[in-house]
Amino acid sequence: MAHLPFITDFNQYLPHLSVDCVVFGFQENGLKVLLLKMKHHELWALPGGFVGRQETVEAAATRVLQERTGLGKIFLQQFHVFSDPHRSEGNAVTEGEPAAIAWFAQRFITIGFYALVPFDKVIPQPDLISDACTWWDVSDVGPLLVDHHLILKKALEALRLQLHYQPVGLNLLPPKFTMPQLQKLYETVLGRTLDRRNFQRRMLDFGILERLEERKTGVAHKAPYYYRFDRQRYQQALEEGLEKSQ
Amino acid sequence: MAHLPFITDFNQYLPHLSVDCVVFGFQENGLKVLLLKMKHHELWALPGGFVGRQETVEAAATRVLQERTGLGKIFLQQFHVFSDPHRSEGNAVTEGEPAAIAWFAQRFITIGFYALVPFDKVIPQPDLISDACTWWDVSDVGPLLVDHHLILKKALEALRLQLHYQPVGLNLLPPKFTMPQLQKLYETVLGRTLDRRNFQRRMLDFGILERLEERKTGVAHKAPYYYRFDRQRYQQALEEGLEKSQ
Repeated sequence: MAHLPFITDFNQYLPHLSVDCVVFGFQENGLKVLLLKMKHHELWALPGGFVGRQETVEAAATRVLQERTGLGKIFLQQFHVFSDPHRSEGNAVTEGEPAAIAWFAQRFITIGFYALVPFDKVIPQPDLISDACTWWDVSDVGPLLVDHHLILKKALEALRLQLHYQPVGLNLLPPKFTMPQLQKLYETVLGRTLDRRNFQRRMLDFGILERLEERKTGVAHKAPYYYRFDRQRYQQALEEGLEKSQ
Repeated sequence: MAHLPFITDFNQYLPHLSVDCVVFGFQENGLKVLLLKMKHHELWALPGGFVGRQETVEAAATRVLQERTGLGKIFLQQFHVFSDPHRSEGNAVTEGEPAAIAWFAQRFITIGFYALVPFDKVIPQPDLISDACTWWDVSDVGPLLVDHHLILKKALEALRLQLHYQPVGLNLLPPKFTMPQLQKLYETVLGRTLDRRNFQRRMLDFGILERLEERKTGVAHKAPYYYRFDRQRYQQALEEGLEKSQ
């Protein structure tokens, strides 16, 4: 949740409640996160906002992300509620309309959402109240507004855990890909290298990959096979967890 | 969140926000869930309540569970926020003090928490406003207050997913146990049978079990070994996920 000084009818939102969005961008050379810089504010922040009186928190997060970054149709997942009673004190404002001052002086409990999207297909656009909206390399992120660093850290933990129980990659890899490409995706998100043989065995055990009779061409050494996701099994594993068959 | 008609100072709580607790009890012959029956109410409900103005949501859930069921020191985990705008309409009351009527007429967004505890070591006690507080077999639960059935369903999904990425069993099994006992725990929570050899291989792969040089006595067939959890690795896997070593 960050400053929205232009809003005047705060009554359209539920008090004390906000949403914050952690959008991770995948690229082979690193994991990125989308940050906003608000006008009249020195610190970068996660895109965030409030929950309408007749809105679900999921709809609020999707709307906020679209309004403030130009990113639409991103599937966001809840991952944690942040409720330290003092967490939002850094959001208080001293100038502006009395209604705005009172609104931002409230204690806010925020619901964190995250998503993992293809970095190069998404072009963020700042809105009227933002100076900038850009991708940052996760390892380069400095101090953020209020507790947004904690929210980012928790989102990264949630994303890494998710790798172990839900399939990822369907929208992040090309339709056919090699095992090294899939491994690179996991290594990028986990931030560490993985053993090649263990990785391959484990991925095949999940039963969501289909090996094609085609090998990658133009490589010097042993040409790797192409794989694609078995859509039906992928979908089933999304819903039931990767270990259903175990 | 359920009726608390005796509370008069609603101002001590944040508006629009509640917590609900899904406490699962493990027993070899089935998975149980703790339900309350409120006075003047026909439906059973999850133990729930409100969030104090200076309280974290975790502290609120722990307090609510202790006050309303007599269960203390249970480690509850957040798992989902339920925010359908109409979800809490069934909580509205028509009799009582005007402040109570107004309070319960609000839209409530509720934060779901769950825990898995040893069924036989926990003796629930209803509080002054409850007629009963008892364990129910998960498969026997009938209609519940408002959307509590959905909350229970989602908690069960979260618990089952958790089996795949975090160790369970430390407080649910005796200090030394056999592989069949561990398998029974997983089968009880998952609600289905598992292949014995795959299960054993997978559990050993996690690297959190230590095999003792002692076999179970008094069994007719091949005597199974005892195992115990390697506390340090168990703790590490709790924090980092079971696949850290992969």
